[in-house]
Amino acid sequence: MAPGVSHMCPASRASIFPRRHTRALWPCLPTVFRSWAIKEMIIFVQCPGEVVEAPGSWRGPAEGLRLLKVGGKHLGDLSFPELRGISNLFSAYCRRAFVPWDVLMIRGTHQVWQYKSRTLKEFISFCICKIGGCHRSFIGGRSVLTAAGCQITVNTYFYSTRFSSGTSASLCQGVMEGLLTRCRALPALATCSHQLSQYAPQRFHHCAPGRGKRLMLSRMFQPQKLREDQVLSLEGRSGDLTCKSQRLMLQMGLIHPASPGCYHLLPYTVRAMEKLVRVIDQEMQTIGGQKVNMPSLSPAELWRATKRWDSMGRELLRLRDRHGKDYCLGPTHEEAITALVASQKTLSYKQLPFLLYQVTRKFRDEPRPRFGLLRGREFYMKDMYTFDSSPEAAQLTYSLVCDAYSSLFNRLGLRCIKVQADVGSIGGMVSHEFQLPVDVGEDRLVVCPSCHFSANMETLDSSRTNCPACQGPLTETKGIEVGHTFYLGTKYSSIFNAQFINVHGKPSLAEMGCYGLGVTRILAAAIEVLSTEDCVRWPGLLAPYQVCLIPPKKGSKEEAAAELAGDLYNHITEAVPQLQGEVLLDDRTHLTIGNRLKDANKLGYPFVIIAAKRALDDPAHFEVWCQNTGEVVFLTREGVLELLSQVQVV
Amino acid sequence: MAPGVSHMCPASRASIFPRRHTRALWPCLPTVFRSWAIKEMIIFVQCPGEVVEAPGSWRGPAEGLRLLKVGGKHLGDLSFPELRGISNLFSAYCRRAFVPWDVLMIRGTHQVWQYKSRTLKEFISFCICKIGGCHRSFIGGRSVLTAAGCQITVNTYFYSTRFSSGTSASLCQGVMEGLLTRCRALPALATCSHQLSQYAPQRFHHCAPGRGKRLMLSRMFQPQKLREDQVLSLEGRSGDLTCKSQRLMLQMGLIHPASPGCYHLLPYTVRAMEKLVRVIDQEMQTIGGQKVNMPSLSPAELWRATKRWDSMGRELLRLRDRHGKDYCLGPTHEEAITALVASQKTLSYKQLPFLLYQVTRKFRDEPRPRFGLLRGREFYMKDMYTFDSSPEAAQLTYSLVCDAYSSLFNRLGLRCIKVQADVGSIGGMVSHEFQLPVDVGEDRLVVCPSCHFSANMETLDSSRTNCPACQGPLTETKGIEVGHTFYLGTKYSSIFNAQFINVHGKPSLAEMGCYGLGVTRILAAAIEVLSTEDCVRWPGLLAPYQVCLIPPKKGSKEEAAAELAGDLYNHITEAVPQLQGEVLLDDRTHLTIGNRLKDANKLGYPFVIIAAKRALDDPAHFEVWCQNTGEVVFLTREGVLELLSQVQVV
Ligand SMILES: [Zn+2]
Ligand SMILES: [Zn+2]
Repeated sequence: MAPGVSHMCPASRASIFPRRHTRALWPCLPTVFRSWAIKEMIIFVQCPGEVVEAPGSWRGPAEGLRLLKVGGKHLGDLSFPELRGISNLFSAYCRRAFVPWDVLMIRGTHQVWQYKSRTLKEFISFCICKIGGCHRSFIGGRSVLTAAGCQITVNTYFYSTRFSSGTSASLCQGVMEGLLTRCRALPALATCSHQLSQYAPQRFHHCAPGRGKRLMLSRMFQPQKLREDQVLSLEGRSGDLTCKSQRLMLQMGLIHPASPGCYHLLPYTVRAMEKLVRVIDQEMQTIGGQKVNMPSLSPAELWRATKRWDSMGRELLRLRDRHGKDYCLGPTHEEAITALVASQKTLSYKQLPFLLYQVTRKFRDEPRPRFGLLRGREFYMKDMYTFDSSPEAAQLTYSLVCDAYSSLFNRLGLRCIKVQADVGSIGGMVSHEFQLPVDVGEDRLVVCPSCHFSANMETLDSSRTNCPACQGPLTETKGIEVGHTFYLGTKYSSIFNAQFINVHGKPSLAEMGCYGLGVTRILAAAIEVLSTEDCVRWPGLLAPYQVCLIPPKKGSKEEAAAELAGDLYNHITEAVPQLQGEVLLDDRTHLTIGNRLKDANKLGYPFVIIAAKRALDDPAHFEVWCQNTGEVVFLTREGVLELLSQVQVV
Repeated sequence: MAPGVSHMCPASRASIFPRRHTRALWPCLPTVFRSWAIKEMIIFVQCPGEVVEAPGSWRGPAEGLRLLKVGGKHLGDLSFPELRGISNLFSAYCRRAFVPWDVLMIRGTHQVWQYKSRTLKEFISFCICKIGGCHRSFIGGRSVLTAAGCQITVNTYFYSTRFSSGTSASLCQGVMEGLLTRCRALPALATCSHQLSQYAPQRFHHCAPGRGKRLMLSRMFQPQKLREDQVLSLEGRSGDLTCKSQRLMLQMGLIHPASPGCYHLLPYTVRAMEKLVRVIDQEMQTIGGQKVNMPSLSPAELWRATKRWDSMGRELLRLRDRHGKDYCLGPTHEEAITALVASQKTLSYKQLPFLLYQVTRKFRDEPRPRFGLLRGREFYMKDMYTFDSSPEAAQLTYSLVCDAYSSLFNRLGLRCIKVQADVGSIGGMVSHEFQLPVDVGEDRLVVCPSCHFSANMETLDSSRTNCPACQGPLTETKGIEVGHTFYLGTKYSSIFNAQFINVHGKPSLAEMGCYGLGVTRILAAAIEVLSTEDCVRWPGLLAPYQVCLIPPKKGSKEEAAAELAGDLYNHITEAVPQLQGEVLLDDRTHLTIGNRLKDANKLGYPFVIIAAKRALDDPAHFEVWCQNTGEVVFLTREGVLELLSQVQVV
């Protein structure tokens, strides 16, 4: 045993560790840790599903303090109100303790350590070592560890010497000692790994035992791979044309039809969409966008005010509530947002511009919903509405939003054309569409190769064949509209009287713009543009999972490489924090590597890593398929980690 | 100039820096940076709103490579297809370069540096120093810098020596040199700060010039503070009782009525809700939950199959589409999810359990919508549906979800009681409610102080006054139902024939559970529980912004402290990365500190920091209000940073 240890765990204090455990544990502490002069340590161990409810409104940083309860047995009988009382007492006495947590010196590391170990004693010493090896600011931590196929959460709180002088310190000490005395049931810990392990096969049925928090492909909810005729019958069609993205998304279990033009978004698609929404949020907030959320139920009187209750015709889905009041399901929200801003009676020009946006479901009763997520009746849209104090300011805002759209598609690696467009039912004075050029697109576009003029064909005189700007010949292409921008002027603000106080102290109508992005449509359009006939490809930033790891087939010659694959999984999630939650293990080891690689290729994980024959070399080499570039390389573990450390995740 | 610099920027290579700039820049490099033997460096500078669109589908990590274009003038004439070609060429020749980015060695730092500087030359040298001072893995970076009140993005890419041997290296070198030769317009950089600054007042109108990306309170969209009678008139009521959370949320501009029982969620509330959804996601995914997203439009035939089309009565909002087909707006999705799972024809017991959940809007035509977000007609809910292979497994899943709910409320610091409940219209065999005890609650609960029995009063015989478990007396309390769990058995799976292949190879009906959490309701209930009559209080983890910084009043004696407040803002966002986007500057300096503190107190930012008289001490002391504990302390800058570094943000 290292010298100088005894003072850190004096026999005179009631330790939560019986002495024999203490002896085993303290020598594990690295020197840096010992030098902190830690007086005492409390470890609360919590089994998942055995959370002790807090019966007091005990606030503070969120991890929560949980008492030890293992296998149905409480390790301490300290109640939450008691703990809270202690914390508050601390706060009151220690003037520089601002929140109860400060006293207990609790920090969360947010990092999940996965570690195979056989006994709880080992977990704890591992945990201490880990924490001891960390930066000094981590003097407490929560770690999720795996033992005997079962996962436990270990919360460690260190009682430091920062309260070692004066009244408050001795109070702390007294209270801490009381707390320690109460947590005296540790012997249960030493013997409870058996108890814990009996939970594993049932509780963690959705994780293979012994593998902790790994994401297992076999547990994914994803309807089986479908043949083309099955896809058609799913959609209730017989021989109707469907486009590539619709077919692939149905076949791969990314979406499932609910009713015509309405789809269930399945887990992979939800992940991709959430990533897309994060990119959109970043771009909108970079230009000053503020996010709101408006109801889908939109009162008829708003739409009657703009005459769109009639002019929108059968595209509006209408309903009546139990009191006979008419509503539509909002396909867009110019009316709602203008009425909302108009309700602010003391708006000053100094507060403008406002760029308000939301990402919500929209509804449109399409006569012929088709092409899957490309033209549905219920879909997600980002709609932004801007309010400016002058036409000039509004035009600057307009170009700011257009540039943010360009930046977005740029980040997604999607080529996008901005074309002059018709204002349609929204109205206004200037309008542009953002179009992804692709054959299945329903919009016909013209582009001038000489002067960069581009337009939706419907904005041009049908007899025109030359460019209005330079008189040169025009090229025609098809596109999918993924964004649309409108400069509205005062069309809506004049109806709802959305005013602000101008620089002269007089009320003045706000100059508006509105800007849409089809969120679910961008997902489908990206798949349409990037995929091959048989294989889904995603914009790198939006791929639902970045990495799929394929271990060898059970019973094959390479089976010994299975453990290396498991280790690699752990190394990746430890060494590349941004990939936590992004690595899938294809544990369907009853299938050959070839079959699973085929599946992975179809689903389009940007990186597929195979542990096969060369994983048994020294050093082990893994086969890495970079699906977005089509390259295949053999890399050592370090090579894999270096490659993956460059992957951007939003 | 430091010795040994010349080899890094040899005159023989066409540098993008004219020599005089090079001389000024290179000596800034710290030693660690020099030791990399960097051969050459390219810096692409991009002005916001001047994004060069990528006219090729150029994929890779998302930041995108943007050519230099400043003040309308391109600094290089290299097109994206050309760059892409070069990258692909690199990839093909350099066997160990997996993605084009690898060659260019591009990394994103994701960190925003805010730096006041007068010329672009200074930015660049600052940027190099920053990157040079970083860990070696950051050998390229994107930084957003502020100059002359204008913000620019600087992307730096370093060409390292990793390709310094063999054919591929010399190819790289050749191509890189070509690339460098093309980027020869740097002199424009040295003189363009004037051009840049002319954009600032217009483009960045929503940010005060010279302050870069600070969040300014004056620009927040938040309807004015309302008196109680104004709130009533807003809701179209005369003297009706509203509860505390409803009144406070309306008064503080957190929500705004759209129609009875439907609210616009304004920016603060959207931020809080997004944080709540992240906590829910964490808890659900920890127990194996997979997120899906089902349409709101729910076909009538599904509801007719379970007979709920009739039994749900007027609570269902119904509508008919243009083809005369009946739908309801889903208040819950047992029918939809069971039909979805039933469509998977080859489900094996090995894949179960499935825990599928979504966070979406739900609709219920409440006869009397009231209490704001507590009982609305359109609201956000988390609904989870589970599928197990046996009643025993389903019961384990049931307790797993209940424990996750307890953990959630624990993390939010909300006391929550789990009570036995009625199964209502959902049906099933076992049900529990999660109730927040509060007087305004609409549910009457009984709790036994002796044996922890608790129940919703409606589940008990009305004549009963003693505890069914221990016969002791019962205590009555009121609660807000924030969660509800149901063990459904095969009620729905038998109707839709949701089967799996069991261990004996025979089809068997899935055992189901369903589990709801009222997302918007939890927000309002938390405010109801935690707030005072006049001041909103949030669970720490959900507060829309963690910090509000109040500089002195303009023209006051303490005005000199304004700059210190601005510096503190920068220090916080630099030193505490998790607080980026969480710090608001109350720039309404025409108001006294007292008035702004009053507002901040009402809105409930967990930390309010004031730069007043003692900020002019040496060292400066800031007044810090810890609103969730009620404490006020004076801290130096280091003290503030230490305090805030402990704040948990989700
Ligand atoms: Zn032309
Ligand atoms: Zn009892």
